[in-house]
Amino acid sequence: MFLKNAWYVACTPDEIAEGPLGRQICGEKIVFYRGEGGRVAAVEDFCPHRGAPLSLGTVREGKLVCGYHGLTMGCDGATLAMPGQRVDSFPRIKSFAVEERYGFIWVWPGHRELADPGLIHHLEWAEDPAWAYGGGRFHIQCDYRLMIDNLMDLTHETYVHANSIGQKEIDEAAPTTTIEGEQVVTSRHMENVMPPPFWQMALRANGLADDKPVDRWQICRFSPPSHVMIEVGVAHAGYGGYDAPDDVKASSIVVDFITPETGTSHWYFWGMARRFKPDDQAITDSIREGQGKIFSEDLEMLERQQANLLAYPDRRLLGLNIDAGGVRARGILSRLLKAEQAAAESGRAAIGA
Amino acid sequence: MFLKNAWYVACTPDEIAEGPLGRQICGEKIVFYRGEGGRVAAVEDFCPHRGAPLSLGTVREGKLVCGYHGLTMGCDGATLAMPGQRVDSFPRIKSFAVEERYGFIWVWPGHRELADPGLIHHLEWAEDPAWAYGGGRFHIQCDYRLMIDNLMDLTHETYVHANSIGQKEIDEAAPTTTIEGEQVVTSRHMENVMPPPFWQMALRANGLADDKPVDRWQICRFSPPSHVMIEVGVAHAGYGGYDAPDDVKASSIVVDFITPETGTSHWYFWGMARRFKPDDQAITDSIREGQGKIFSEDLEMLERQQANLLAYPDRRLLGLNIDAGGVRARGILSRLLKAEQAAAESGRAAIGA
Amino acid sequence: MFLKNAWYVACTPDEIAEGPLGRQICGEKIVFYRGEGGRVAAVEDFCPHRGAPLSLGTVREGKLVCGYHGLTMGCDGATLAMPGQRVDSFPRIKSFAVEERYGFIWVWPGHRELADPGLIHHLEWAEDPAWAYGGGRFHIQCDYRLMIDNLMDLTHETYVHANSIGQKEIDEAAPTTTIEGEQVVTSRHMENVMPPPFWQMALRANGLADDKPVDRWQICRFSPPSHVMIEVGVAHAGYGGYDAPDDVKASSIVVDFITPETGTSHWYFWGMARRFKPDDQAITDSIREGQGKIFSEDLEMLERQQANLLAYPDRRLLGLNIDAGGVRARGILSRLLKAEQAAAESGRAAIGA
Repeated sequence: MFLKNAWYVACTPDEIAEGPLGRQICGEKIVFYRGEGGRVAAVEDFCPHRGAPLSLGTVREGKLVCGYHGLTMGCDGATLAMPGQRVDSFPRIKSFAVEERYGFIWVWPGHRELADPGLIHHLEWAEDPAWAYGGGRFHIQCDYRLMIDNLMDLTHETYVHANSIGQKEIDEAAPTTTIEGEQVVTSRHMENVMPPPFWQMALRANGLADDKPVDRWQICRFSPPSHVMIEVGVAHAGYGGYDAPDDVKASSIVVDFITPETGTSHWYFWGMARRFKPDDQAITDSIREGQGKIFSEDLEMLERQQANLLAYPDRRLLGLNIDAGGVRARGILSRLLKAEQAAAESGRAAIGA
Repeated sequence: MFLKNAWYVACTPDEIAEGPLGRQICGEKIVFYRGEGGRVAAVEDFCPHRGAPLSLGTVREGKLVCGYHGLTMGCDGATLAMPGQRVDSFPRIKSFAVEERYGFIWVWPGHRELADPGLIHHLEWAEDPAWAYGGGRFHIQCDYRLMIDNLMDLTHETYVHANSIGQKEIDEAAPTTTIEGEQVVTSRHMENVMPPPFWQMALRANGLADDKPVDRWQICRFSPPSHVMIEVGVAHAGYGGYDAPDDVKASSIVVDFITPETGTSHWYFWGMARRFKPDDQAITDSIREGQGKIFSEDLEMLERQQANLLAYPDRRLLGLNIDAGGVRARGILSRLLKAEQAAAESGRAAIGA
Repeated sequence: MFLKNAWYVACTPDEIAEGPLGRQICGEKIVFYRGEGGRVAAVEDFCPHRGAPLSLGTVREGKLVCGYHGLTMGCDGATLAMPGQRVDSFPRIKSFAVEERYGFIWVWPGHRELADPGLIHHLEWAEDPAWAYGGGRFHIQCDYRLMIDNLMDLTHETYVHANSIGQKEIDEAAPTTTIEGEQVVTSRHMENVMPPPFWQMALRANGLADDKPVDRWQICRFSPPSHVMIEVGVAHAGYGGYDAPDDVKASSIVVDFITPETGTSHWYFWGMARRFKPDDQAITDSIREGQGKIFSEDLEMLERQQANLLAYPDRRLLGLNIDAGGVRARGILSRLLKAEQAAAESGRAAIGA
């Protein structure tokens, strides 16, 4: 259902600024916190003493202390101390590989021996001062793959987001889907169309006319386990669209990290990275607010779609050409899942599990 | 549990005035909407493309358009169009027979080939300008048959509705239950009693004294699948009660359409049809408000009764003489259900299912 | 899971002052009410007529009348009357032994033949005018035994109640656990410590200095099925602690009656009995308010602990020396449960079941 040996976005730094955070990821109940030296740590959210959630505890001098009876947990899952107790024989709980990078906390919910920080999805824009980023987080009651489908087929914008980014021409421009290694790329180009409201705002923010025809593009890139980066933008018509010079276009990257919670729920980290006016916080806030409204329009649809699929488990859905991005992404996930399961069966000893 | 080849009230016209309505009826998830020429249509609430609920969509030029990716659904369950797609091979979804009559939308949740509009329960008063009607709708978490029991045994008025229509004399007047074809009729007559508050109001509205003894009647008629029409009224005592001349009585018909949603929930359409001052909207509103309050007193009782029955599934309940109406109604339902199941097993081919 | 042949606190008199009370206890749905002569009665919350909850009914002239159709139930579970019906053959529902004593209503959810009022937990303070009592009630979504554990290991005060009764010295004073018959006693004594905020208030209320070191004690007594009485107090340091003369100490009894509802929920009746200023209602109210706040701090911890244990059903928890009270209490409960089950199997006839 979901890959466990992979890096997912677990949370953002602000979520662990005040204390530990309990969050279920890929079926694992995990507590995230800042340990010694401010370094992020993650262990099971289960105190080995009496099963209390460690996320109800506190961090004292860089150590996680259970809020029920004061057991002090180490970042490797071994109990460090407990008032009046010898703790050598206490059972160890799981610990998880975590990394802080690009403004996110990443977790590897599978075997920590396999967790190579070099495998964390690379985000060029996150380290380049020419870019700015703003985003948010939703909890959604549906299979994370329904969100991948949603993002790999932006046809839905015409219907779900009719008042912001949707426009009839999206329907009319057939998308192209290609596979590049383990990435799936679905592209759509619309020529000589009027910019919808969201892009009018972006054009204005960019100092460009918002009432002229534009060439518009959407290039969705899926990477396992569940990241979807979408290059989006408009350029005044006739200058080359995606390849137009910077001074006639507004472009950005829609950033989507989709983190499974259970088989039918996930955490959705959404945002937008832009390459213009990176220091203008008002623009960041305005885009985030607009994007938050737009993405919230998907919530009811996705959750009710999930409910319908649970009610009719035997129905096979269609995979049309507009669905190719999601279908291909699911194909890659299935293949990787099989490989992970095969490795788990044949190689538990080898990875020290 | 419920008959599927029968006409039920699905909704009222105001519920589909602004757009499609999703409602589960007899276990079927259905979307109701006004199609071409304003004619009511009903299909499964499940888009064959990706399983989205069609009820989140819109009606455009008399056609139902999915709110996710724009699939256009026909009122027969066949996809009509989808932007950029050939739809010939799209799987067909179920469609349902629907009729608009008497101010209600009626649905036949079973095989539409069997749906004969002539079988819709006839409501004389609905087509007679001498009558007025007002009503409302509740969603209730109990088996629809508990509501039939409730309405076929008005003894409960003494207890549940002690402050409005209940009075001790109801208990003391034994009811009579007869069967007329597939109808069950339970009648109760009380002679020379004081009118309870609701009837005092009705007498006043009728220009009659509200402080004199009356003869009171309640004639409950159950018709399959789950309609209960109750002739109720009071006449100044000694003029013949039910048969008294119009100028000494206030009478009306309590209208109850009980539409199963699941095995333990239903939609309850209640109302009152009256034959006096039909054009006086203030009286209609006042009665509706009073009736809404009274009927809401049944909700907690019915839902908690259902919870008790689920907690004690093995207990056999009593069927006393006051329960005869409900018991007989359930007997008729059981017989019709068996016939429907037998027909389904032996005759699927014959009905084209 | 829980003993059924035992006395539990069911409710307090104020809860049945206005009418019947429905409450599930040890899996039994029970209605409590004041019957003839004001004597408390308890029968199943299930009307034999149509399964309505009798707790939605009323008490008329000392008899419980169903709120649906007026059946009158006797306190022995036999129907007494119903309007227009002969009730001789009506099925009998269960009745339960109940007693009113010490300001509580006690129920014996098992076989009423075995219910000996002499077995009700004796509360000396409840009958002594030198004492005052105030308390409250919580509904908690966890196994009642997690609450016993909680109360038999007050180490948690340091963490859960850090701002009221917790203090670091609790951790440092090792508890002693002994068994006295079917009672488990866990004691902890702290010498020459500063009183935490709650005890400062109690010292002041007692006319004593609140800024001097004290000797503090906690003596937890578990008695089956699930009562925990905790002698708690502080005395100015050096006067003998628990044995110090009254004029240098503030002491009281924390009263905990823990009544299982289902396997994973319970009713928690908490309170405090004190031996000073028994007539000062303002002190009673102030203590109750403080205690209510403190005990509510346990709720989230207990409910989330329960959720964790349900999510990880195979994990064995630790039983450290601080857990000895709870471990021993569970041991006694297990032994008594086995005895109850053995008696049920071998002796149903003997007890008339």
